[in-house]
Amino acid sequence: MSITSLLIANRGEIAVRIIRAAQAMGIRTVQVHSAADRDMLAVKLADEAVEIGPPSAAKSYLNIEAVLKAARETGVEAIHPGYGFLSENAGFAKAVEEAGLIFIGPRPEAIALLGDKVEARKIAARAGVPTVPGSDGRVDSLEKARPLVEAIGFPVMIKAAAGGGGRGIRIAETLEEFERLFPQASAEAQAAFGDGGLYIEKVITRARHVEVQILADGQNAIHCFERECSLQRRRQKVWEEAPAFRLPDEARKALCESAVRLAREVNYRGAGTVEYLYDDETGDFYFIEVNTRIQVEHPVTEMITGIDLVQEMIRIAGGAPLSIRQEDVVVRGHAIECRITAEDPAKNFLPAPGTVSTLTIPQGEGLRFDSFLYEGYSVPPFYDSLLGKLVVWGEDRQACIARLKTALAATDIGGLATTVPLHVALAEEPAVLAGDVHTRFLEPWLETAFPATPSKELV
Amino acid sequence: MSITSLLIANRGEIAVRIIRAAQAMGIRTVQVHSAADRDMLAVKLADEAVEIGPPSAAKSYLNIEAVLKAARETGVEAIHPGYGFLSENAGFAKAVEEAGLIFIGPRPEAIALLGDKVEARKIAARAGVPTVPGSDGRVDSLEKARPLVEAIGFPVMIKAAAGGGGRGIRIAETLEEFERLFPQASAEAQAAFGDGGLYIEKVITRARHVEVQILADGQNAIHCFERECSLQRRRQKVWEEAPAFRLPDEARKALCESAVRLAREVNYRGAGTVEYLYDDETGDFYFIEVNTRIQVEHPVTEMITGIDLVQEMIRIAGGAPLSIRQEDVVVRGHAIECRITAEDPAKNFLPAPGTVSTLTIPQGEGLRFDSFLYEGYSVPPFYDSLLGKLVVWGEDRQACIARLKTALAATDIGGLATTVPLHVALAEEPAVLAGDVHTRFLEPWLETAFPATPSKELV
Repeated sequence: MSITSLLIANRGEIAVRIIRAAQAMGIRTVQVHSAADRDMLAVKLADEAVEIGPPSAAKSYLNIEAVLKAARETGVEAIHPGYGFLSENAGFAKAVEEAGLIFIGPRPEAIALLGDKVEARKIAARAGVPTVPGSDGRVDSLEKARPLVEAIGFPVMIKAAAGGGGRGIRIAETLEEFERLFPQASAEAQAAFGDGGLYIEKVITRARHVEVQILADGQNAIHCFERECSLQRRRQKVWEEAPAFRLPDEARKALCESAVRLAREVNYRGAGTVEYLYDDETGDFYFIEVNTRIQVEHPVTEMITGIDLVQEMIRIAGGAPLSIRQEDVVVRGHAIECRITAEDPAKNFLPAPGTVSTLTIPQGEGLRFDSFLYEGYSVPPFYDSLLGKLVVWGEDRQACIARLKTALAATDIGGLATTVPLHVALAEEPAVLAGDVHTRFLEPWLETAFPATPSKELV
Repeated sequence: MSITSLLIANRGEIAVRIIRAAQAMGIRTVQVHSAADRDMLAVKLADEAVEIGPPSAAKSYLNIEAVLKAARETGVEAIHPGYGFLSENAGFAKAVEEAGLIFIGPRPEAIALLGDKVEARKIAARAGVPTVPGSDGRVDSLEKARPLVEAIGFPVMIKAAAGGGGRGIRIAETLEEFERLFPQASAEAQAAFGDGGLYIEKVITRARHVEVQILADGQNAIHCFERECSLQRRRQKVWEEAPAFRLPDEARKALCESAVRLAREVNYRGAGTVEYLYDDETGDFYFIEVNTRIQVEHPVTEMITGIDLVQEMIRIAGGAPLSIRQEDVVVRGHAIECRITAEDPAKNFLPAPGTVSTLTIPQGEGLRFDSFLYEGYSVPPFYDSLLGKLVVWGEDRQACIARLKTALAATDIGGLATTVPLHVALAEEPAVLAGDVHTRFLEPWLETAFPATPSKELV
């Protein structure tokens, strides 16, 4: 049974992306939105829109009851969660299914398992996927932790087993520091998550972030090759590429195949991303986590493979088997995505919401602009600062960067400060051109390239 | 020696396309323009701009001396002629070379040979490329023509040997009609071209227009598969696709290989297009002509092959060998181009120049918008009415058309009447969806779909 109607439980550019995919498949769309998002592009594009709450995300986009009520009232068959918000909430996925609707994503159990870092690590180990040396499971006491960290060596990272993203992470460079930080972290995790369990991982000091796109239908799993996302600021990806640069064929094969093994281990269904740290010097790679949803950076994979990941997610959720065989996934050229956010790089990335007074998006070959902007639109201050993604394709990485420069020069978002100047500078940076970057490259580089001048607003 | 600077002897969207290609290759660009085109986008994008004459094309874009003077004064190494204007003028190509500059296109002799319909037909015959039954060369008298047309059968087409495009073409359905039209046509050709020579061809009554893109470096030639351009109005292509629909693999192979043979026969250099009529019912195909330049519809080929044809033209003109081998030209998915012109389909395609008051171009995956429009730009009334080309890619033809509909709905060119509504209607037309069209499909269809209401301006 293929899906004929779906609700988008998200906002911004990904809501527009999902609507376009649905429209191309002849699927009726319902867009939910907060009171602050009445004018957003997805509301205009969808067949129907339902306001589900006040601006606060907790009361609208994260409000499971309100989302399900909108779904019931509009009679949709399925819900696409996008990324962020409820997309990796196993409880939401379960509630969607219990309401007799299709959750466009993995089964709730898979989300729960892979969302638990300790469980995910066990699954990776069973699938023969290398993990970062560390505690294989939670460590509840300093006594048990001490011999472990002495064995794996410093620096080590201490994370809350129940935490997510970059929250509550501590890094210890020495044993003394570790002994001081461990009890603090445990107490904080107990307070924040009701679970004081911690786990410990070796810090790979000069690593690249390489991730593998997977697609699976519950029976079969394939990979759509990898993305390089080493340019990060505060653990947020800023610039992504596909394929990864300077990656030996052997390493590419090992990374991609291990991602598929991991997906098969849990009979994964839908689109997902297996994230790795890749050590440039040794060629070793280590599993980080699985994102059980569509990623912000999925367009770079679409551009080099020709696969529409969002349409494929929807088809699979409708019960169809994978429409693509592994041997048909062929890489052509190179793609780069620049995340354009409403932040001012000249003012230490001060958020800069406002009204789009003029909008010129680049035209021509090898370009894609995924955004929810239009002229006259007021970007609300309540949510993520992502305005859009400029995605550029070229015959090879050099051609791609050359085209990116022209495209950035032709991009004009008037009325807001944006990170376009940051991308212009990155496209000229010799280390970026050489692909000689790692996850800790961008932040120190920014201190020189965009020195933080104290803004008047903050002084 | 690769080219480091070039002059664009053209205007409109193709000038922008060439500038983008040059910029991506790090090549300095000089844009020539008429007095009416001071505000055109290519003038803003180029490194330098030179005004070469008044609005009349004859005194500016067709003025060889003025173009060469601009090239000399700006010290460029090469000239890209685009399409139309001087692009297939062998005399211009020769003058460029005699000025010590590089003409980005075939050698002047190849332009001259292939531009002469009778010579081109001879070359095709030598290369074993089927031609439409007709006079193999010019026919100067009715006496010589009569037995010929009786042998090939009616209807037949009478064309001036020296003519171009659709000018001076007559169709005779019977021998009586032929005997009446032949002397008329000869007298007119004499008056118009100073050459009363005619040639005669059988009319293929239900043919599709299929053309093959070739790339060659003077030594080696390859094809980049074919395009389908059967939807035409007044012999102007309106909507183009790649690959051609419902084309048996065998026919595709024969068409593409015969185009390569033809290119090799003249040691062709640059990009070119071999045009054919394809008879759906018999599977026969007939050579029409070679266009010795980049075509308006080149983007559909770029989208399915990943090859940048304009960059490759420039590389070849700089003396590089073909950078692509035949076995590396692989088709992925399907692409459609809609030519958007400043004409009002509701008013019998009355030209509608004016000022672009608002411009919303579609955003997202699988799209390309090649245009020279920007908000506030006044489209001058002196030239071709092409405003831009919406090019859409999909995993297959169905996916492509689905995406095209969404993209057309998101396209908004305010202040002018355009042919967007025509494309919206074509994307819904069952015959188009089934690929059941031929070169004479569009005009009668338009009479029903867009009945010509007499415009107030003309009444």
